[in-house]
Amino acid sequence: MSGEFNLIEKYFVGRQKQRKDVLLAAGDDCALVKAPEGLSVAISTDTLVAGTHFLADANPAWVAHKALASNISDLAAMGATPAWVSFALTMPSPDEAWLAPFCDAFFELADYFDIQLIGGDTTKGPLSLTLTVQGLVDPDKALRRDGAKVGDWVYVTGNLGDSKAGLDVILNPELRTKPCAEELEKRHYLSTPRVLAGQALLNLASSAIDISDGVISDIKHILKRSNVGVSIDVATLPVSNELLQFVETPAAAQQYALSSGEEYELCFTVPEQNKGSIDSALAHCGAKVTCIGQIRPQGTFELHCSGQAIDWSLSGYDHFK
Amino acid sequence: MSGEFNLIEKYFVGRQKQRKDVLLAAGDDCALVKAPEGLSVAISTDTLVAGTHFLADANPAWVAHKALASNISDLAAMGATPAWVSFALTMPSPDEAWLAPFCDAFFELADYFDIQLIGGDTTKGPLSLTLTVQGLVDPDKALRRDGAKVGDWVYVTGNLGDSKAGLDVILNPELRTKPCAEELEKRHYLSTPRVLAGQALLNLASSAIDISDGVISDIKHILKRSNVGVSIDVATLPVSNELLQFVETPAAAQQYALSSGEEYELCFTVPEQNKGSIDSALAHCGAKVTCIGQIRPQGTFELHCSGQAIDWSLSGYDHFK
Repeated sequence: MSGEFNLIEKYFVGRQKQRKDVLLAAGDDCALVKAPEGLSVAISTDTLVAGTHFLADANPAWVAHKALASNISDLAAMGATPAWVSFALTMPSPDEAWLAPFCDAFFELADYFDIQLIGGDTTKGPLSLTLTVQGLVDPDKALRRDGAKVGDWVYVTGNLGDSKAGLDVILNPELRTKPCAEELEKRHYLSTPRVLAGQALLNLASSAIDISDGVISDIKHILKRSNVGVSIDVATLPVSNELLQFVETPAAAQQYALSSGEEYELCFTVPEQNKGSIDSALAHCGAKVTCIGQIRPQGTFELHCSGQAIDWSLSGYDHFK
Repeated sequence: MSGEFNLIEKYFVGRQKQRKDVLLAAGDDCALVKAPEGLSVAISTDTLVAGTHFLADANPAWVAHKALASNISDLAAMGATPAWVSFALTMPSPDEAWLAPFCDAFFELADYFDIQLIGGDTTKGPLSLTLTVQGLVDPDKALRRDGAKVGDWVYVTGNLGDSKAGLDVILNPELRTKPCAEELEKRHYLSTPRVLAGQALLNLASSAIDISDGVISDIKHILKRSNVGVSIDVATLPVSNELLQFVETPAAAQQYALSSGEEYELCFTVPEQNKGSIDSALAHCGAKVTCIGQIRPQGTFELHCSGQAIDWSLSGYDHFK
């Protein structure tokens, strides 16, 4: 870990147990790691910029959680097991009041998922964070976006819609008086990457993606890569009681569920012959799963409500504006 | 490669040949790569921020070269062979006039070193770049900072000092009339990572580091990790004819050479018994090497000029201010 500030040693070095596959962590030109024989390395990079992905005055512990959780979620969507993370932090000046709670939350989540910080950089500039996470996965089983087949069932983990409702609260302080506003705001920052669910799906799902732009936007990536279409029953979209109380009508909750981004739930497809195994395979993960539709031939993109046609114009999910 | 702008496909996807060890590049939640059996993965992350590491109006092709070359230099300093790079780009708005020459230069250098772009992110915000490069190396041979022994000889590749002189020109336009100003400015941005030299040193050097903060600052990292000291003869520091013409006196050139950062030359130590093999081992690399001193017991930090004591107060290298 290099860097221009002298806070690296205080806040970042020696905070974690050394993984056995990390041969060299901080203190050299590079980190050195070694993947076990037969496994490939899954790699994902994400940047969070203050003002775009979080407000500059947001709780630093929540920002740390969001940054790491959203990256780990990409590993979960491949069915990979988290292993290593590199972290580049750019900030205007070394701000210890911000760094201390940030690092506590960062390492708490990192330790929970046994992902080791192996290096990074600290630089002077406008506040932003770039993380590169790496995980391990059998390349022949990894969950990709290109394996969905016509007839496969479409599932999601957890509930959808809370993150967008939370973002509404963050951006519109007058909504704070609405029911469950505080819980939803917290939910926006504190998602749970579905790592165990992703691993459990390795032998069952034909494709998977994590929900970062909204389920409608994200499933289109699966459709495009797999050359298929989809039919979704919006009446089946799983929503929380908190969201129902916040938006008041089931239809409003469904619209939130369709377009809410940064959920970090998984959307995945399952062939008919594996459908019966899904509930038991995921029982230990603590994540409920819900079937929301079915893969159809290429060109089909159908939203219905228990068979009734609907005609919603959906707004996309566009981070902070 | 995810991202908020729709320029990814146009500028970043399909620009390179697929490496055989890249199982999946752009278009999924993660990239998938596989290291050959027996080799470990060397990983390094660096951020360049406009205004801190380059001027916002700098030639975008030069910025691309500097960003990638400085990261590859960390792989060179471990003796690793470049393999994969992830690239996170933050910019205020999608600026095609900047992106086109940037990407041309980025991929030209990437192709030269056979390093494949495997993913990244594009986000909206103040201009900055974060790269995570990965290379392959035998973990038992990798060049580390902690192997220097008393009596080992200290070497550097190439010339030192040009980068700092170039930075002076960039920051002080009145210096543009001095001899070789233009060459030195270019040299500041367009360094050559010493990948071949690093590989050639795998069986010969006892430690290595790349020169990013100035040889005096960087060698201190070797001394600290190896628990040793050093004696350096500043009269032996290799300097270019261009630098000599620019600064006018050999002493001034030596002072530049000692403190110039972002050189991306290698500084390495060689046991006595390998000294005779250095010149022939590095002959094919196109990089001259120069012995500048010797490792001494811990606590010694001696600068002399052909045996005469010197007392220079050296200014550090502090990027753009």
